[in-house]
Amino acid sequence: MPKKYVDIETLKYILYDIHKLKNSLARERFQDHDMESLNLFLDSVKEFSDRELYPYFKEMDTTPAYHKDGTVLVHKQVEKVMQQSGEMGIIAACFNYDIGGLQLPFIILQAALYIMESANNNLPGYAGLTGGSAELIVEFGTKELIDTFVPNMLSGKWAGTMCLTEPQAGSSLSDIVTKATPTNQGFYKISGQKIFISGGDHQYSENFVHLVLARIEGAPKGTKGISLFVVPKNRPKSDGTLEYNDVMTVADFQKMGQRGYCTTHLGFGDSDDCRGWLVGEEHAGLKQMFLMMNGARIAVGRGAAAISMAAFRASLQYANERPQGRKLTSTGKKNPSEKQSLIIVHPDVRRMLLLQKAISEGSLCLVLLASKYHDFETTATSKEEKEKYHLLLEMIIPIVKTYPSEAGAESVDNGLQVLGGYGFCTDFVLQQYYRDIRIFAVYEGTTGIQSQDLLGRKVTMQNGKGLELLSAEILKTIAAASNDIDLKTYATILGDKLKLSQKVLGHLLPIAKKGNYERFLADANLFMEYMSIVVLGWLWLEMAVDAKNALKNGDKKYSETFYESKIHTMKFYFKYEVPKTNALSESLMNNEEVTIKKDKEYIL
Amino acid sequence: MPKKYVDIETLKYILYDIHKLKNSLARERFQDHDMESLNLFLDSVKEFSDRELYPYFKEMDTTPAYHKDGTVLVHKQVEKVMQQSGEMGIIAACFNYDIGGLQLPFIILQAALYIMESANNNLPGYAGLTGGSAELIVEFGTKELIDTFVPNMLSGKWAGTMCLTEPQAGSSLSDIVTKATPTNQGFYKISGQKIFISGGDHQYSENFVHLVLARIEGAPKGTKGISLFVVPKNRPKSDGTLEYNDVMTVADFQKMGQRGYCTTHLGFGDSDDCRGWLVGEEHAGLKQMFLMMNGARIAVGRGAAAISMAAFRASLQYANERPQGRKLTSTGKKNPSEKQSLIIVHPDVRRMLLLQKAISEGSLCLVLLASKYHDFETTATSKEEKEKYHLLLEMIIPIVKTYPSEAGAESVDNGLQVLGGYGFCTDFVLQQYYRDIRIFAVYEGTTGIQSQDLLGRKVTMQNGKGLELLSAEILKTIAAASNDIDLKTYATILGDKLKLSQKVLGHLLPIAKKGNYERFLADANLFMEYMSIVVLGWLWLEMAVDAKNALKNGDKKYSETFYESKIHTMKFYFKYEVPKTNALSESLMNNEEVTIKKDKEYIL
Repeated sequence: MPKKYVDIETLKYILYDIHKLKNSLARERFQDHDMESLNLFLDSVKEFSDRELYPYFKEMDTTPAYHKDGTVLVHKQVEKVMQQSGEMGIIAACFNYDIGGLQLPFIILQAALYIMESANNNLPGYAGLTGGSAELIVEFGTKELIDTFVPNMLSGKWAGTMCLTEPQAGSSLSDIVTKATPTNQGFYKISGQKIFISGGDHQYSENFVHLVLARIEGAPKGTKGISLFVVPKNRPKSDGTLEYNDVMTVADFQKMGQRGYCTTHLGFGDSDDCRGWLVGEEHAGLKQMFLMMNGARIAVGRGAAAISMAAFRASLQYANERPQGRKLTSTGKKNPSEKQSLIIVHPDVRRMLLLQKAISEGSLCLVLLASKYHDFETTATSKEEKEKYHLLLEMIIPIVKTYPSEAGAESVDNGLQVLGGYGFCTDFVLQQYYRDIRIFAVYEGTTGIQSQDLLGRKVTMQNGKGLELLSAEILKTIAAASNDIDLKTYATILGDKLKLSQKVLGHLLPIAKKGNYERFLADANLFMEYMSIVVLGWLWLEMAVDAKNALKNGDKKYSETFYESKIHTMKFYFKYEVPKTNALSESLMNNEEVTIKKDKEYIL
Repeated sequence: MPKKYVDIETLKYILYDIHKLKNSLARERFQDHDMESLNLFLDSVKEFSDRELYPYFKEMDTTPAYHKDGTVLVHKQVEKVMQQSGEMGIIAACFNYDIGGLQLPFIILQAALYIMESANNNLPGYAGLTGGSAELIVEFGTKELIDTFVPNMLSGKWAGTMCLTEPQAGSSLSDIVTKATPTNQGFYKISGQKIFISGGDHQYSENFVHLVLARIEGAPKGTKGISLFVVPKNRPKSDGTLEYNDVMTVADFQKMGQRGYCTTHLGFGDSDDCRGWLVGEEHAGLKQMFLMMNGARIAVGRGAAAISMAAFRASLQYANERPQGRKLTSTGKKNPSEKQSLIIVHPDVRRMLLLQKAISEGSLCLVLLASKYHDFETTATSKEEKEKYHLLLEMIIPIVKTYPSEAGAESVDNGLQVLGGYGFCTDFVLQQYYRDIRIFAVYEGTTGIQSQDLLGRKVTMQNGKGLELLSAEILKTIAAASNDIDLKTYATILGDKLKLSQKVLGHLLPIAKKGNYERFLADANLFMEYMSIVVLGWLWLEMAVDAKNALKNGDKKYSETFYESKIHTMKFYFKYEVPKTNALSESLMNNEEVTIKKDKEYIL
């Protein structure tokens, strides 16, 4: 296995210097934490990941989770990591003190899970989903529900899951049919099937607390008739013992990647004895679920960013160790008497490595930006501030979910290519990252869904206020970079691309106004790609501004090479990635309709 | 398994109507063949593939080839397909009558292997490599060598392989160290290690005829000191029996994909008893091998084109059967009371399907174009004609190898995404295509190597004669399309892109002239992408011109929808793919050097 799976220095740089963790810590909620203690916390997570996660990464792929006799058998490390995630406060990190939480900033939890996911992306999901579902109960559930379920979840004793997808509905949640029948005993009877349930069952948790979307009998059709329920695998009785709650593990899904992270098919109420407890209001389930969905989507972006980082480190190590070929001489030939070069000297290999660096570190910066907005929103001291960060977060969420997943897959693909034939062989780890990362463009809303969210909802929300706020943030960086003689050029380019995005919207929005929504959203994926490049260009420019300042002011926490490499990667991004906006804007403003279904069927 | 893995109609359309097989058949060498007999041959290959290849596709992935006790155990179907490939004349297809060949056009063999590869890409390689290595012996070997080895290879009794790569050399063939020591008995003693040998050993062939690159003792350094040898696993004795020739299967490579197509590590001469027979002249090995390399590179492009086709058909079937979501109404909402739509109505799904169609059918058209050039070169009746098709083939070969592999992987990626979560599950076949196709960007010279070949050698060969000839062909299509009122726009765009490519070269070539070859070739991959888009745009425009003519003239062999779909896919290609040249040309003409190694190391 490669020596290094994560670049902790860059993580801390982005966390402390770029996103200025200190500012978050000034918030009242976080007053008990200081930079030093959080730094130690991250170091302990790294040490834990070195010891309990990374060494099992390959093994969890070659001996995948599997369904047997009504349960799913997973790798023994699941037990260890769930337990330790409880003990170390990873599950409880962001909860309030009063229910046993640590009131850590959300951004710190994301950094911690990022480290763990770089080490082994099969494991943190078990803990992460448990925290996410506990959060839903805490946010919307009654005190009784909270007391019954949450403490055992935060300690890692019980696991939690989110049950949205059904076989006949897929991404179309309005077609959910899982049924909730009211009783007069305070619970509902649940019946239905849920698929693609991550961490839905295994031998190491005595209970699973499922957060289930279902339809109360007689509820309105569509998404407005969906309610949220807590449906445990085993229901706690008043004496503290557990009783089977008719939640059956029907099957599992064997997957191309993330093979150690089990994916299950659950059946509820096969024997008409499955009880569910309503969380929050009737028919408000989807809205409630979506309040938590931002967290889930940050988590997806974070996981993908972590995998692309780990793959980058692995291919970088290979490139630094593998001799092959020679540098070209000025006659265009090579001299076979010379010693072979390490492949890291070849420009094409460097291009692939720099692309990985730009994508993986850029994705990390993006994920932590969203986390910062999340902290600022939840701890805002004024309505205006809350609104501002709420809108900023809403605006970038689809990009945070999508860019690390899509570009991350491209990044890993380049990492594999650096190794040539070895990259394709199971003896090397690149092919595992290649398979693992592929699911992230599907998780929690596919790229298509995210793109429609970005263009169809986020751009237009509150008359474009979110986009306005985001543009203002970008313009701040452009202004700062314009003051630097070396960065001015890049600032100008980014400004132009931002303006061009407005032109693109000026072309698209009238189409929606005319009522042709299908056409308006037809190329939403391309718009997603466009905006992602602008946002990533912005973050890289921001990093370059900071690095430049550090070099100028002599206030260097990191090496000169470290700062130079950030500036260099920004230049790479502007040379190779930013120009893609030209192609995208041309396609987006092309009026020919070739993907809208017409009367004639052309695809054969 | 999906019902349809290949679109035979499109294959025949491209073969007969676009590449006008009739013109090839007019050549003397092919006079015994007519359209009808070749059509029947392809139908029989399809029937054979339906029966003996496709049903085993999944099984060969889940029970991969593996190394045990010094041999490799492969799926039983390898035996069947090798034997039948012999009987049906697939291995012998293009050889001369005098050694048992069928003198079929090369383009027909490629079409046949394409069908087989669409059905199951694990199998045709065994036969294909046997044909390729037999060809090397026939082309350069003595009559004795031919008589000893070739008949058993053409019949499928013995298998053949190509042994180039060594552990310490990788793509850098000048660093090959496998040793050939002359003896006075007409053979050389061979010793060394070869890795990544496809089809290098298995239980179903009584002999393996390895074509091995090695260095005769005292040979010059570099590629000019490499010779080619026939090194059988078992050497035939004068009495016709076989004697072990000290070729050991040291290990195999377990891979992410193509798991049924074995990849071996061979050791030659461990007991100092491995005999090799020189093929052709001393030190001419690499030149000889590369004369055959065009065929090998066409084969790689063909395999990738076949996989992307099969994946396209699978995702198209899914999209036509899976109901999910609804069309957007003019208020931008969906009506949940409406029946769910099939996902093929959603523009984003159609975009993914059309991209697959454009790439997979375009790749097929490209592969068969190269095959046609190959036939025209080998059967040319004048020196000028031979030269013309030689240069045209040389020019497009790196693109033929690369575009189907790189764009094909993107195509399959989109196919997987059409299936959402199911695409990631092993119950569905998309994830297998996704894994299988990934090796094609590495096979027979990586994308990096091909790109350097295109920009560094092919563009400049004979003072740009190859590029001139290719441009002339493209201009012919542009002229034809300009005469059609509907196609004129696209003709103009393609003409502009061709001109822009000259501007790009006008920027790059002076850099080489100044002796800065490293910088000249640093972005060769981007140039490859640029030229690929131009060539594919050309082929799609050519198909549109033909389809338009057929529709106008009422001479319709295929349905109106069939022709319309070709024109429609061309439009798709011009809207979504061709604009990428804008971004690529901008990057290519950007003078900032960010991938050339400087004194300081910036990648951390």
